[in-house]
Amino acid sequence: MHVPVEFAAKASDILARIRARAPRVHCITNTVAQQYTANMLLAVGAVPSMTNSRDEIGSFVAGADALLVNLGTLDAERRAAIDLAVEAASVARMPWVLDPVFVDRAPARAEFARQLVGRRPAVVRLNTAEFATLSGGDPAGDAAARFAERHRTVVALTGGVDHVTDGVRRAVIANGDPLMGAVTAMGCAGSALVCAALTVETDIWIAAAAAVAALGVAGEVAAEDARGPGSFASLIIDALHGLDAATLRARSSVS
Amino acid sequence: MHVPVEFAAKASDILARIRARAPRVHCITNTVAQQYTANMLLAVGAVPSMTNSRDEIGSFVAGADALLVNLGTLDAERRAAIDLAVEAASVARMPWVLDPVFVDRAPARAEFARQLVGRRPAVVRLNTAEFATLSGGDPAGDAAARFAERHRTVVALTGGVDHVTDGVRRAVIANGDPLMGAVTAMGCAGSALVCAALTVETDIWIAAAAAVAALGVAGEVAAEDARGPGSFASLIIDALHGLDAATLRARSSVS
Amino acid sequence: MHVPVEFAAKASDILARIRARAPRVHCITNTVAQQYTANMLLAVGAVPSMTNSRDEIGSFVAGADALLVNLGTLDAERRAAIDLAVEAASVARMPWVLDPVFVDRAPARAEFARQLVGRRPAVVRLNTAEFATLSGGDPAGDAAARFAERHRTVVALTGGVDHVTDGVRRAVIANGDPLMGAVTAMGCAGSALVCAALTVETDIWIAAAAAVAALGVAGEVAAEDARGPGSFASLIIDALHGLDAATLRARSSVS
Repeated sequence: MHVPVEFAAKASDILARIRARAPRVHCITNTVAQQYTANMLLAVGAVPSMTNSRDEIGSFVAGADALLVNLGTLDAERRAAIDLAVEAASVARMPWVLDPVFVDRAPARAEFARQLVGRRPAVVRLNTAEFATLSGGDPAGDAAARFAERHRTVVALTGGVDHVTDGVRRAVIANGDPLMGAVTAMGCAGSALVCAALTVETDIWIAAAAAVAALGVAGEVAAEDARGPGSFASLIIDALHGLDAATLRARSSVS
Repeated sequence: MHVPVEFAAKASDILARIRARAPRVHCITNTVAQQYTANMLLAVGAVPSMTNSRDEIGSFVAGADALLVNLGTLDAERRAAIDLAVEAASVARMPWVLDPVFVDRAPARAEFARQLVGRRPAVVRLNTAEFATLSGGDPAGDAAARFAERHRTVVALTGGVDHVTDGVRRAVIANGDPLMGAVTAMGCAGSALVCAALTVETDIWIAAAAAVAALGVAGEVAAEDARGPGSFASLIIDALHGLDAATLRARSSVS
Repeated sequence: MHVPVEFAAKASDILARIRARAPRVHCITNTVAQQYTANMLLAVGAVPSMTNSRDEIGSFVAGADALLVNLGTLDAERRAAIDLAVEAASVARMPWVLDPVFVDRAPARAEFARQLVGRRPAVVRLNTAEFATLSGGDPAGDAAARFAERHRTVVALTGGVDHVTDGVRRAVIANGDPLMGAVTAMGCAGSALVCAALTVETDIWIAAAAAVAALGVAGEVAAEDARGPGSFASLIIDALHGLDAATLRARSSVS
């Protein structure tokens, strides 16, 4: 089913506000994803920063408009930085997004992620395997809605089809291209885009769904000219940079 | 001399098995190379992970099919991670590849690399300057074969022409393009491809030579359309992603 | 105003000497910028290295021809490495460049940067916000020249128009493209190019201005074919790799 016109218009409006405001997004993210995440944020007009050190994290978060907490390449410095940054974001009532990368691979990381879920991220963006680990059960059916409701957050469960739910409302987004799964940090960068959307849109569910849909649409545009995942990784950034209302209206598939 | 048909067929078969199995390759590698290495692994259908922390490295290696140990940007955390990861890989009889980046630049690193060679990597992939440091002598002639025999490993000595030897058998691979030397982490990513090949091929020498040849052939394909090292870096990933039996047969030059 | 022919010729000559000599540039730089910086250096024919560890930094700097000190993602290891590396560079009379990334965002970092300015970097490359923080005042007018004179360094203040001054001489460079601001690490990589230029040119002001102008011209060439910041990021590397005397002569705008 095609998106109601108002949804595509909302996504387009959010992109326009990000470009106009140039919000700052501080990212605690893994070393594999840092460059790509920064370029994705710059492509939509946001300003990324990526410092983790104990001495500086407070100043950087205080000067930011949203915070990304991504658990990839988690080390002692990142753990400490996350604790300080989430505290600073909570005090400032700044939205933050949790991306619990690979919690299905390491029990210690899953335990840390569960604690973070309790600290009220605006959005948790993750894939099916990660969600199964965090929710402790079957990801099928309404598990995402129950998780969102119980933890008073928005869940953005991404994959072939993306599901975004705040426990009551659900968006099913059928955009994107398989090549997105062949580029490292695509999900991580998507979480950063959700952060950018949160800086200009107070309806968290709308912000998350708009960011996910916009990235999916950009992926479709990029796939038309890509020869493989290498050129696709660049072209999706180009597509996101140039994404306009007409393309969003023509391609968004949200139901 | 052109490759015997059976060698190109073997490389093609290894790629097909990687794509079918989607093996996990855990990479302890330098921060410069992480993104490119991950994208190269994804391009052939493998699943990369890159964590180094003491708390998690054991779980990640236990869940992997092969391990890459690359000594670039070596720091205290990486040293500790390598020790734990090699131990875990040895216990699990999991193949691991040593890439002793820049051992010619720092005596402390060279000493660490020598200890690691003693822990039985399946393959040591390195360039001529690195080999000269590790072997303590002249890299010319049969030094690589002697090194492989003495340390019961396979040496993949890459450069203008690549030499892969297990001490008895030697493959001389004349594929590739000079632009490969103008892209950072190309050798590092090549070592990761050797890891991927080892997950599906028990003949270590065949696996290493096939991975090196496949990357070289992809480089030749990419060079045809590249305008320079920037576009080449993306196009070689595209080429690797789409590499088929016919191209390998037509272009592989292994003697 | 177009550049005097001799200036474009000088830049072209510097590039030719870098390509011929393949100088080594050791970079202490942030994890976001490492890959792009390495690829930019390789594109002009220089050889990058990026290690930070206490055990190895001395050896790497001793074997290098220039040093980059970039303050992004500053952590305890980087702080220690910078201290050791600047000491080693000073003893060896090796030129080093300071890139005080985001000093406007964290007071602790600004204080560290001020100490480093006192240790005589050959060049300080930074943007307007960073300069305002470091100079403690208005960046307008002749503040850059006063800063350069007081600290006996060369200031390369980059932005829409770039200013390079040693306190007496000033180059105003009107090359570049707005897409340069939409690619992460573009400034960081520019600082690395200044390092490369310093290895072959003893007139520091000329070296800095030539590197800044060359990158700007490459940006203009890349922008002609780019579809957005993703493809631009690759094309500027291609353009830099292929930059020739005729293009520099036709496009350099230095007054």
